[in-house]
Amino acid sequence: MDSRPREHQLPESTGGAGVAPTAPPAREPSHAERCRTLMQGERRGSLSTLAADPAGYPFGSVVSFGLADDGDPLFFVSLMAEHTQNARRDPRASLLVAEPVPDGADPLASGRVTLLGLLAPVDDAGRDQARARYLAANPAASYYIDFGDFTFLRLAVDHVRYVGGYGRMSWVDEADYHAVSPDPLVDAAAGILQHMNDDHADAQVLFCRHFAHLPDTTSASMSAVDRYGFDMIAVSAEHRTPVRLAFVEECTTGDEVRQAMVAMVAEARATQT
Amino acid sequence: MDSRPREHQLPESTGGAGVAPTAPPAREPSHAERCRTLMQGERRGSLSTLAADPAGYPFGSVVSFGLADDGDPLFFVSLMAEHTQNARRDPRASLLVAEPVPDGADPLASGRVTLLGLLAPVDDAGRDQARARYLAANPAASYYIDFGDFTFLRLAVDHVRYVGGYGRMSWVDEADYHAVSPDPLVDAAAGILQHMNDDHADAQVLFCRHFAHLPDTTSASMSAVDRYGFDMIAVSAEHRTPVRLAFVEECTTGDEVRQAMVAMVAEARATQT
Repeated sequence: MDSRPREHQLPESTGGAGVAPTAPPAREPSHAERCRTLMQGERRGSLSTLAADPAGYPFGSVVSFGLADDGDPLFFVSLMAEHTQNARRDPRASLLVAEPVPDGADPLASGRVTLLGLLAPVDDAGRDQARARYLAANPAASYYIDFGDFTFLRLAVDHVRYVGGYGRMSWVDEADYHAVSPDPLVDAAAGILQHMNDDHADAQVLFCRHFAHLPDTTSASMSAVDRYGFDMIAVSAEHRTPVRLAFVEECTTGDEVRQAMVAMVAEARATQT
Repeated sequence: MDSRPREHQLPESTGGAGVAPTAPPAREPSHAERCRTLMQGERRGSLSTLAADPAGYPFGSVVSFGLADDGDPLFFVSLMAEHTQNARRDPRASLLVAEPVPDGADPLASGRVTLLGLLAPVDDAGRDQARARYLAANPAASYYIDFGDFTFLRLAVDHVRYVGGYGRMSWVDEADYHAVSPDPLVDAAAGILQHMNDDHADAQVLFCRHFAHLPDTTSASMSAVDRYGFDMIAVSAEHRTPVRLAFVEECTTGDEVRQAMVAMVAEARATQT
């Protein structure tokens, strides 16, 4: 459970005089967590392997994947495919996975992760799990998953590169990547955003005015939600301001998010009078 | 202009007795043409370069691109980006570009191309064209295209790998890739398909019954159209049959396609009586 103070508690602890200059920022997912969450939400990526002809060229191909418990990607590939033959000669490889890009949006502003590692066959002990995980992510593969000329591969990730958009990027410690858990709201997030933007625009304006101390806010929209909090854009006559607010406690389900939002509305209204 | 016979002319030349066993197949785009058309229709791909750390690993990253006249991809990249630094040390690279995958469809059934080559800075003589082509494909780049810490790169393609879906793949001769032209219907195709499927399902059934000799056809839908012809799925009580029909002459505009379809309807109706 997260015991750090949320940003919007600070006005109370500093006598309601607004966010203190020393206020810690609202907690956000780490880059390792963002990578794990991004991987959890997608099932298709671009695999880079090393070609034999032309020798040593990096070769990109489309792959579907599932995920092992520690976040290593699992593949089910044809023995005849270029990437399979490449990996057999030289196991160095990487998998690039990108968030979906909304229509008309700049693809370079979206998040993506490159997992680098060694690509090798799954051993007998790991085969059942690999099969289950690959099928869970790619149900359409069920009609050929038992073909004899396919095999399971695992990318044993040893380096992780994260790019969150322009200027937001880092190399992520591979131990962190393997240790963290994907955001429990990964599947619920899109529905929460739609619900909050369709039906609770007024609550968002209240949040921006009260907790983010932007009293001129005339409209607001939510752009992201995760276990630690949520992001909004607060719009006034003059400005568009990004706002991050944290939950008091981590939310692991859509229902917990709903309860947290209801409590925040009540708190904002109570102190408004 | 294409002077080959179209498949649906054959019944006349063989006395109306159906497609002769020796009938040449309806002309289709070559794999080289499919690659050029796919590249023309997309503007985002996955670039694979060779990393310095971890040494020699293939590294995948997201890129936007424009196209030179000969089909070589043109990039506009930050000098600080990993792929830019990688290419400076070792120019071997590849660009993977995939067709969009319809919602719910199997991504491994869609077309994609991997262009392999050497990635190097565009020289002064080529800079204006590179700038224009990149901006034409990526208008959002206009606000940073004159930043000093970006540069134009060109991938001088020397190998081409095409995958059209399960079991449809080949290495394409790079000279062919550079010589052919993208399909002139690349931008019009989606609209033509929608129009034919929304408003002219009856004409498609007529085509399947008359030209493809599938008299039991009860419904049909068009899945692709190009300068040489079009693909349909003919549905009967028993079967789903892929059908390819060729135009008499190449069609380079949506209007020419419309005229060709009207003539085919007239021909089918005239011989039906």
